[in-house]
Amino acid sequence: MSDVSPSSTHNLRADGSRLWATIHETARFGGTPKGGINRLTLSAEDGRVRDWFRDACEAAGLTVSVDALGTQYALRAGKDMSLPPIAFGSHLDTQPTGGKFDGVLGVLAGLEVMRSLNDAGIETRAPLLLVNWTNEEGSRFAPAMMASAAYAGEFTTDEILAKRDVAGTTVAEALDTIGYRGGEAVGERAIGAFVELHIEQGPILEAEGKTIGVVEGGQGIAWFDGSVEGFESHAGTTPMPRRRDALLGLSEFALAAERIALAHGPSAVATIGEATIQAPSRNVVPGRVAFTMDTRDPRSETLTAMEEELRAAAREIGERRRLSIVLERIWRKEPVPFDPKVVAAVDAAAEGLGLSRRRIISGAGHDACNLAAKVPAAMIFVPCKDGVSHNESESSTEGDCAAGADVLLQTILRLAN
Amino acid sequence: MSDVSPSSTHNLRADGSRLWATIHETARFGGTPKGGINRLTLSAEDGRVRDWFRDACEAAGLTVSVDALGTQYALRAGKDMSLPPIAFGSHLDTQPTGGKFDGVLGVLAGLEVMRSLNDAGIETRAPLLLVNWTNEEGSRFAPAMMASAAYAGEFTTDEILAKRDVAGTTVAEALDTIGYRGGEAVGERAIGAFVELHIEQGPILEAEGKTIGVVEGGQGIAWFDGSVEGFESHAGTTPMPRRRDALLGLSEFALAAERIALAHGPSAVATIGEATIQAPSRNVVPGRVAFTMDTRDPRSETLTAMEEELRAAAREIGERRRLSIVLERIWRKEPVPFDPKVVAAVDAAAEGLGLSRRRIISGAGHDACNLAAKVPAAMIFVPCKDGVSHNESESSTEGDCAAGADVLLQTILRLAN
Repeated sequence: MSDVSPSSTHNLRADGSRLWATIHETARFGGTPKGGINRLTLSAEDGRVRDWFRDACEAAGLTVSVDALGTQYALRAGKDMSLPPIAFGSHLDTQPTGGKFDGVLGVLAGLEVMRSLNDAGIETRAPLLLVNWTNEEGSRFAPAMMASAAYAGEFTTDEILAKRDVAGTTVAEALDTIGYRGGEAVGERAIGAFVELHIEQGPILEAEGKTIGVVEGGQGIAWFDGSVEGFESHAGTTPMPRRRDALLGLSEFALAAERIALAHGPSAVATIGEATIQAPSRNVVPGRVAFTMDTRDPRSETLTAMEEELRAAAREIGERRRLSIVLERIWRKEPVPFDPKVVAAVDAAAEGLGLSRRRIISGAGHDACNLAAKVPAAMIFVPCKDGVSHNESESSTEGDCAAGADVLLQTILRLAN
Repeated sequence: MSDVSPSSTHNLRADGSRLWATIHETARFGGTPKGGINRLTLSAEDGRVRDWFRDACEAAGLTVSVDALGTQYALRAGKDMSLPPIAFGSHLDTQPTGGKFDGVLGVLAGLEVMRSLNDAGIETRAPLLLVNWTNEEGSRFAPAMMASAAYAGEFTTDEILAKRDVAGTTVAEALDTIGYRGGEAVGERAIGAFVELHIEQGPILEAEGKTIGVVEGGQGIAWFDGSVEGFESHAGTTPMPRRRDALLGLSEFALAAERIALAHGPSAVATIGEATIQAPSRNVVPGRVAFTMDTRDPRSETLTAMEEELRAAAREIGERRRLSIVLERIWRKEPVPFDPKVVAAVDAAAEGLGLSRRRIISGAGHDACNLAAKVPAAMIFVPCKDGVSHNESESSTEGDCAAGADVLLQTILRLAN
């Protein structure tokens, strides 16, 4: 490998065609008839794609190791091996009816970065580390993103190893079954910075015609369990003014939550994703409805303000309709600000490539959000069709994937040199 | 028996204490720990209460027969046996967690009427007929009120005999199991008029402090199956203005239905009793919600107007929110007007007894509503606590039950003499 000056790497691009081919090559592991992927974490299919990934990394001259939670690390030597490696990657597991890009793009674009650097004969100053995090999706084992959370110290390795899927299988057993319980201690490997390329999983970039999202952080999230308690009564014999209809209470509250989120726009969101009438019957006025609510915003104070306004709305609606509306916050995750220097490197990389871009906040959780608690981190988003993700119809263009890989490559070069 | 003049019967009362004791005596057939009754139609418990009823009727000198659908008829001879009998009764089957009064009161008050007439030595001109209709509730076999519907010619006997419960048992098999497939052809027995005493199953009488509801008819009913179709999307990444949230569409529609029913008040009602989010998830914007709706009013034209307004609301909400709201009417039953002469007899009976009363429309369906298609019919309501029915906590006072039985007795005397 030659010693290259930064200027000679400015025009370096990833091989977009090779990346596209690799994405489709690995899509056969768990591929579905509808063009998606069913590759639950630590399943046999996940084992097969991990084997493929290890072989591909080794063929690219990388040194692959596995930690005690199955996370794969592929190291490319740098000129100064005393420096912590610049890391990048994402996850190869999918939802049960997932698409071909969620997570996969970040890992395979990382592989493409390694291959392109090899092709160009470039050796970076800091070593490079490509990571495939175990169980980002959380579909089989909860919580989601558990390996990166353990890396960041949020859980112990033993806590995670003991988690069970619905069949009662533990993470430890699942790792052993596919031969991916590695020897490396979780969280002990030094990382100088972490960059994750991912599809946006939202509609903003596509709607604004932007190619690159320079991700500044992850939203804060508050989750609630709620219920509306009224009185079950006969749909034929109970006059409208005498009813205590729990569904109508929920309806007013859902519309109030929408108004509150809109008033805190543009980033604030509030969603009632689950609502279940107790003992529903065609001719019975609903007496009780249980629901869940998800609120998010990039600012901690907005999350707090929304919660106060939601509670006030619940009180007002409950009193007026003679209902009891209960809202219990079961989880709150503070907003994650990404590292300004890593964000700036992503921004400069996109600018240097002449790509249209916008600053953006990640609405979804990602491994990079967990990593940010421990190492400087940031993310790169590319558009996905109609903002659809966690769906077999998830789609991204070859050009956008290539642009994302280019930005990843240029960001890595900036951080590692 | 002595030949008595109408004037000598004006002060005749039923024995309220005996009625109350009888209600509690029969409540043991299927009695629940919470004080309710679980006596599904044609179950072993229903068989036992039928046997008890037959024995009690025969002990009162009545001639009991059973038709091909298990309906029990207990005849008391009149002076002029060429007249069709004046009939009264209700049903002894209950919901799985039913109360002690729904249906039971009408049958046992009818028995009390027979016993009181015996005690007073009164022979009516027309014969009297006490009826226990099979399967009013519809909890085990659909449709509800099937025996009275077959009596009125809405179904053939064979159609009803072939209906199956969830275990696959037919009505015919269930009748045979408890020995209640009788020999009498359904609908061939002449009835001069039919009067049904029942708890209101609603809150109006109690709220207004009235003892007797003089029921003028049954509401018209329209049932709908509906759906709201939007677009499922990520709760974290989809900005509020870009959402097509099916639950918010349903929420607006539910509140519109409430406004429409209130505007057509005081009798009009609209209820969404069932609403199910497709593939609900805490962090997914609901893409589809299925729901059912029940609308009722005593006037056919109001039912029609409400449907038009509901459809207009669905269109407007759907267009504004980029949702598809579908409303399919799956059933419509026209309002049932009771016979003015029978209603007037009930009213005069209550007035003669000095009982507080109001004209009322039945919100629920009853056997009398089916009978009304074939014979002059009406109903008598008494209050029930908090309007609660189809519930083990269903409750009515001894005094109100006795008042209902008195009005039934006096109504029967007016119609049969």
